[in-house]
Amino acid sequence: MNTFVSIAPVIALIAAICGLAFAMYKFFWVKKQPEGTKEMANIASKVRKGAMAYLKRQYKTVGIFFIVMLIIICVMAAFGMLTWFVPFAFLSGGFFSGLSGFIGMKIATYANSRTANGAQQGLNKGLKIAFSSGTVMGLTVVGLGLLDISVWFLILRALLGNPDEIMAAMLTFGMGASSMALFARVGGGIFTKAADVGADLVGKVEAGIPEDDPRNPAVIADNVGDNVGDVAGMGADLYESYVGSIISTGALATAAGLGYEGIIVPMLIAAIGIIASIVGTFFVSTKEGATQKNLLGSLRRGTYIAAVISAIAAAVLIFTQLPDNTGVFWAVISGLIAGVLIGFFTEYYTSDSYKPTQKLSGSSETGSATIIIDGIALGMNSTAIPVIIVGISILVSFFAAGGSSSFAMGLYGVGISAVGMLATLGITLATDAYGPVADNAGGIAEMAGLGEEVRNRTDALDSLGNTTAATGKGFAIGSAALTALALIVSYTDKIESLGGDLQLSLTNPPVLIGLFVGAMLPFLFSAFTMQAVGRAAQKIVVEVRRQFREIKGLMEGKADADYETCVDICTRSSLKEMIVPAALGILAPIVVGLVLGVNGVVGMLAGALVSGFAIAIMMANSGGAWDNAKKYIEAGNFGGKGSENHKAAVVGDTVGDPFKDTSGPSVNILIKLLSMVSIVFAGLIVKFNLIDLIAK
Amino acid sequence: MNTFVSIAPVIALIAAICGLAFAMYKFFWVKKQPEGTKEMANIASKVRKGAMAYLKRQYKTVGIFFIVMLIIICVMAAFGMLTWFVPFAFLSGGFFSGLSGFIGMKIATYANSRTANGAQQGLNKGLKIAFSSGTVMGLTVVGLGLLDISVWFLILRALLGNPDEIMAAMLTFGMGASSMALFARVGGGIFTKAADVGADLVGKVEAGIPEDDPRNPAVIADNVGDNVGDVAGMGADLYESYVGSIISTGALATAAGLGYEGIIVPMLIAAIGIIASIVGTFFVSTKEGATQKNLLGSLRRGTYIAAVISAIAAAVLIFTQLPDNTGVFWAVISGLIAGVLIGFFTEYYTSDSYKPTQKLSGSSETGSATIIIDGIALGMNSTAIPVIIVGISILVSFFAAGGSSSFAMGLYGVGISAVGMLATLGITLATDAYGPVADNAGGIAEMAGLGEEVRNRTDALDSLGNTTAATGKGFAIGSAALTALALIVSYTDKIESLGGDLQLSLTNPPVLIGLFVGAMLPFLFSAFTMQAVGRAAQKIVVEVRRQFREIKGLMEGKADADYETCVDICTRSSLKEMIVPAALGILAPIVVGLVLGVNGVVGMLAGALVSGFAIAIMMANSGGAWDNAKKYIEAGNFGGKGSENHKAAVVGDTVGDPFKDTSGPSVNILIKLLSMVSIVFAGLIVKFNLIDLIAK
Repeated sequence: MNTFVSIAPVIALIAAICGLAFAMYKFFWVKKQPEGTKEMANIASKVRKGAMAYLKRQYKTVGIFFIVMLIIICVMAAFGMLTWFVPFAFLSGGFFSGLSGFIGMKIATYANSRTANGAQQGLNKGLKIAFSSGTVMGLTVVGLGLLDISVWFLILRALLGNPDEIMAAMLTFGMGASSMALFARVGGGIFTKAADVGADLVGKVEAGIPEDDPRNPAVIADNVGDNVGDVAGMGADLYESYVGSIISTGALATAAGLGYEGIIVPMLIAAIGIIASIVGTFFVSTKEGATQKNLLGSLRRGTYIAAVISAIAAAVLIFTQLPDNTGVFWAVISGLIAGVLIGFFTEYYTSDSYKPTQKLSGSSETGSATIIIDGIALGMNSTAIPVIIVGISILVSFFAAGGSSSFAMGLYGVGISAVGMLATLGITLATDAYGPVADNAGGIAEMAGLGEEVRNRTDALDSLGNTTAATGKGFAIGSAALTALALIVSYTDKIESLGGDLQLSLTNPPVLIGLFVGAMLPFLFSAFTMQAVGRAAQKIVVEVRRQFREIKGLMEGKADADYETCVDICTRSSLKEMIVPAALGILAPIVVGLVLGVNGVVGMLAGALVSGFAIAIMMANSGGAWDNAKKYIEAGNFGGKGSENHKAAVVGDTVGDPFKDTSGPSVNILIKLLSMVSIVFAGLIVKFNLIDLIAK
Repeated sequence: MNTFVSIAPVIALIAAICGLAFAMYKFFWVKKQPEGTKEMANIASKVRKGAMAYLKRQYKTVGIFFIVMLIIICVMAAFGMLTWFVPFAFLSGGFFSGLSGFIGMKIATYANSRTANGAQQGLNKGLKIAFSSGTVMGLTVVGLGLLDISVWFLILRALLGNPDEIMAAMLTFGMGASSMALFARVGGGIFTKAADVGADLVGKVEAGIPEDDPRNPAVIADNVGDNVGDVAGMGADLYESYVGSIISTGALATAAGLGYEGIIVPMLIAAIGIIASIVGTFFVSTKEGATQKNLLGSLRRGTYIAAVISAIAAAVLIFTQLPDNTGVFWAVISGLIAGVLIGFFTEYYTSDSYKPTQKLSGSSETGSATIIIDGIALGMNSTAIPVIIVGISILVSFFAAGGSSSFAMGLYGVGISAVGMLATLGITLATDAYGPVADNAGGIAEMAGLGEEVRNRTDALDSLGNTTAATGKGFAIGSAALTALALIVSYTDKIESLGGDLQLSLTNPPVLIGLFVGAMLPFLFSAFTMQAVGRAAQKIVVEVRRQFREIKGLMEGKADADYETCVDICTRSSLKEMIVPAALGILAPIVVGLVLGVNGVVGMLAGALVSGFAIAIMMANSGGAWDNAKKYIEAGNFGGKGSENHKAAVVGDTVGDPFKDTSGPSVNILIKLLSMVSIVFAGLIVKFNLIDLIAK
C-alpha cells in the first residue's frame, strides 16, 4: 500500500466534511434570509411544525423495526453467521439515511417562505434561495454518505487489515440505509397522496373552498406531504443508491484482485464529485426577465460544469491509480452519459413541451377511459429507451474495464459506471430538491396574496422544478438499476466466499422460479402501496369532515383548523400502511432463500431488478405525463380548464398520483433493499435451505 | 426400438383422427339443428358473412408475411443454417393453426342462432348445442395438432432415423404456428375492441339507438369481433401451446437420453387426452330448471372425468414405457393440478361471486379514478398466486422426474408437466369456446325478440360462459408459461448441439442485458397493441358516422346498413395495426441475437417469460374484474344501472377491454413466439453476433 492509497480514505473524509460544511454554510445563509410577512411566516411555521410531527412519529415506528432487526442480526452474529460489525453498520446506515432526509426536509421547510419572499425582489433572488436549499439537501446526502463510508473504512482497516474482509463486512452496511429509505419513500408517498386526495375531496368538492385555503384542515398536511414525499423520500433513496454503489464497487474491486487501489477509486471519484458539485453551484444564477429556457440553462450549466470537472479529475485518478486498467475511465463516462440520457428521455415522455404528452392531452377528447389507456400505453412505451441505454452502458463499462479478459474486472467496470452516474449527485440532487421548495413557495405566495408578478416568478421557478424533477427521477431509476446490479454481483461473490454452491444458469429450476417470483414482486408491491393510499385517504376524508362539523367558526375563518391532527392521522395511517409493503421487501429474500436456496435468491434479485426497472419507469412516466397533460389543458389547449376534456384529464392525473409519487419511486428502493437483505442473510441461507435438503 | 414404441406414432395419429372425426360428427350434428325464425337466420348469416370477410382478408395479409419468411428461411437453408425440412414445417404449422381458427369460427357462427333456437325448447337443448360447437373447436385444435406432429414424426423417422436429429428438426416446426397465432390473437383482439368501441360510441352515445340494434352499421362487426377475437384467437393460441409443449418435451427427452421411449410419452399422453376428452363430453348435460351452479357442475363433471381418465392412462403408460423414471407421472399430475388451480384463482379474482370484484365495485363510489387504481392494483395483486403455483409445479415436476440426479431428466419432467396441463385441452377448450357462442346466442335472442324465458336461458348459459372463459384464460396463461419454459431449455440444447458457447450465468453481462430487454418487451408490446385499438376504433367511428349521414332511410329501418364495409374496415385496420407488434415479436430475438449473441437471447427469453407472465395475468384479471364489477352494479348493487357509480364502472370496463381482450392474451403468444423465432434463427446467431466479435 503506497502512501497515496493509505491516505486516500482520509482525502475522501475531508471531501465529505467539505460537502457538509458547504451544506451548513448554505443552510444558515438560507435561514438568514427574511421570511416575509407575518402571514407567510405563520403558514411556513405550520408546515414546518407538521413536518416535524411527522418525523417524530416516523422515527418512533421505524425505531421499533430497527430494534427488532437489530435483535435478529445480533442473534445471527452470535451464531457466527455475521460479524459483530454488522449490527453497528446497520444502525449507522439507517441513522445517516434518516438524517439526510431530516436535514433536507428541515431546510426545505425553511426555504419555502423565504423563496416566496425572495421572488418579491426578483427572479434571481428566488432562484438563489430555492436552489441553495436544494444544495443543502444534495450535499448533505453525499457528504453524510461518504463520511459514513470513509470513517467505517478507516476503522475496519485498522481492525481487520485485509481488503477482502473489510469489503465483505462493509457490504452488509447498506441494509440499514435501504430499510430507512423504504420507510421514508413508502411512508412519505402514502402520506403525500392521502393528504392530497383527502384535502381535495372534502375541501374542494364537498365544502367548495378553493385549493390551498387555510380553512381546510388538511391543507397543511398536503404541504407537509410534498416535503415528506418528494424531499425526504428522494433524499433517503439516493443516499442509499450512493452508498450502495460505492460499497459494492469496492467489494467488486477485491473480487477482481485490485486490492486497496481498486477500493479507493470509487471513494475518490465520489470525493471528486463532491468538490465538483460545490464548484458547480456557483454557476447557477440568472438575470431578471429570464425565460424558462434561461432558467433551465442556468441549472444545467452548473450540472455540466460539475460533470466535466469530475470527468477530468477521474481521468487523472484512474490513469495514476489503475495504470493497467485505464479503460475503467470509460466506465465512469458511460455512467455519467447514461444518467443524463435517461433524464432527458424521462423529460421527453413527460413534459408538455414534447409530443407524447401533448398527444396524451388530445386523448381526453374521447373521455377519461381513453386518456387512461393512452397514458398507460405511454408509460409502457417509455420503458424501451432507458432499457437500451442501461444495456449499452453495462456493455461499454464491462468491456472497457477489460471484461473480455477478466470477468471480474468487467463487473468492476459496471460498478464504476454506477459510481460515475452518481458522482455529481451533490448538484443533480440540488436541482431536483429545489422543485418542491419552489412549489411550496408558490403555494405560500398564493395564500398570502403576494400579487401577480411574484406569482408569475414562483410559477416560472415551479414549472422548471417539474422538468428537473423528471430528470431527477430518471437519475434515481437509472442509478438504482446499476447499483442493484452491482449488489447482485457482490452477493454472488459473498456466497462464493461463504462456500455456497452457485449454479446460476438460467435453466436451473431454482434460478428460474426465483426469476418468476422476483419479476412478480414489484407488481405485488405496487398493488400494496396503491391500495394503501386509498385506505389512508379515506381516513383523512373522515377527519376533515369531522372538523368542519365540530369546530365552530372554522368555515367563517374565525377559528383555526386543527392541522396537527390531520398531519398525525396521515402519519399514523401512512406508517401503519407501509408495514406490509416493507415486510414484503424484507421477508421475500429470506423466504425465497429458505425455500429455493442461494440460486433462487439470485434469480429473484435479477427478476425483481428487470421487471422493477420497467415498472418503475412506466409508473413514473405515466404519472408524470398525466400530470402535465392536465396542465397542458389548463394552459388553454383542448378546451382549457373546466371543459369535459379537463375533467377527463383530472381523472388521469388522479390515477397517476399514486403511480408517480408512491408506487413507482418505492419500487426503486425495493430492488436495492432485496439485495441488501439477501447479503445480510447470506450466511443463514447458505447453511440452511429446503432445496438443498430435497436435492440431497 | 420395441414394437410398441415403433407403432406409438401411429396410435397418436389414430387418436388424432378420432378427435377430428368426432369433431366432424358434432359439426354436422350442430349444422343439422334448426336455425329458428327467418330473422334469426338472417342475423346469423350476416355475422357469418362478416367473419368470412375477415378471414379472407386476414389470410391474404398473413400470406404475404409467410411468403417473406419462407424466402428468408429458404435462404438460410441454402446457406446450411437450417435443414430443408424447416420451410415445409413452417408452412404446415401456420396452415393447421389457421385451420383450427377457421373451423372453430365457422362452427361458432353456425351455432349461435341454433343455440338461441334450442333455448326455446329448453335449457338442456341450448347447452347441448353451444357445448357441441365448443367441442368441435376443442377437438379440432387437439386433433389437428397431434395429426401434424405424428405425421411429421413418421416422415422424419423414415428419412432421418436418429431421434436427436428428428426432434432438432421438429423444434423449428412451431414458428409457423406461433406466427399464425400472433396474427390471429393481435388482429382479432384489435378487431373486436375497435368494433365494440366504434359501435358503442356512435350508435349508443351519438345516435341514441340501443345496443345490438340492427340499424347500427358496426353491430355485425361487433358480433364478428367476438368470434374473431375470442374463438379464433384462443384456438390458434392454444393450438400453438399444445404443439409447442409436445415437441419441446420430445426434444428434452433426447437431451435426457431417453430416446424414442421418451419422445412417444408426450405424444401418447396427448393421444390419451383426446380420447378422454371425447368420453368427457358425454357427461355434459343438464336438466331443465338447472341453476347456474348445476350448469357449472355439469361442465366441470365432464372436465374432471376426462382428467381422471387421462391420469390413470398416463400412469399405465409411464409405468410401462419409462419403468426407470416412473416419477415422471407426478409431473403429469402436477401439470394437471396447476392448470385447474390457476383457472380457479383467475375466477376468484375476476368473478363477482367473490370478494375482490365485489370490493372493486365499491370503489366506484369515489369515482372513476379510484376504480381504475383499485382495478390495476387488483390485477397486480393477482399475479402472486399463479407465480407460486407455477413455481411449485416446476419444482415438483423437476424433482419427481429425477432432477436431483439427472438435470436433463428434471427438465424433461418440467416439459411433461406442460403436456399434462394441456392433455385434456380437447374438453377444457370446449367449455371455453362455448362461451362466445352462448354470448352471441343471447344477442340473437335479444334482436329477434324471442321472449323473456328464452332470454333468461341464454343469459344463464352466457353467465356461465364468463366463468369458463376465466378458467380458460388461466389455462392459456399457465400453459404458455410452462411451454415457453420448455422451449427455452430446448433452445439451449439446440445451441449446444450447434457448438454455440453458452454461459448462462445471471452475472454474465449479455445474459443480464438480455434479461432487461426481455422484461421490457411485454411492456412495449402491450403499449403497441393498446394504442392500435385506439387508432382502429377511430376509423370505425368515422365510417359509422358516414353511413348514418349518407344511407337514406337507415335510421328509419327502411334501408339496410352496409355491414360489410364496417367489417372490412375493422379487418383492414386491425391487420395493418398488427404489423408493428408482430414485427416486434419476430425481430426482437433476431436483433438481440445479432448484438448480444446466444446468451443474450436466452436472457431475453427468460426476461420476457417472467415479466410477460405477470403482465398477462395482470391485464387479464384487471380487465375481467372491471367487466364483472360493472355487471355487479348493473345487477342492482351500489346504485345499479344508470347511477354515477355505474358510469365510473363503465370507464373501468372500457379501460379493461384492450387489457383483457387484446394486449393480455397476445402477450401469451409473444413469449412463445420469441422462443420459436430464436430456435429457427439459432444457426445464424451462433455463426454471427457482435458480442463475440468484441470479446475476441
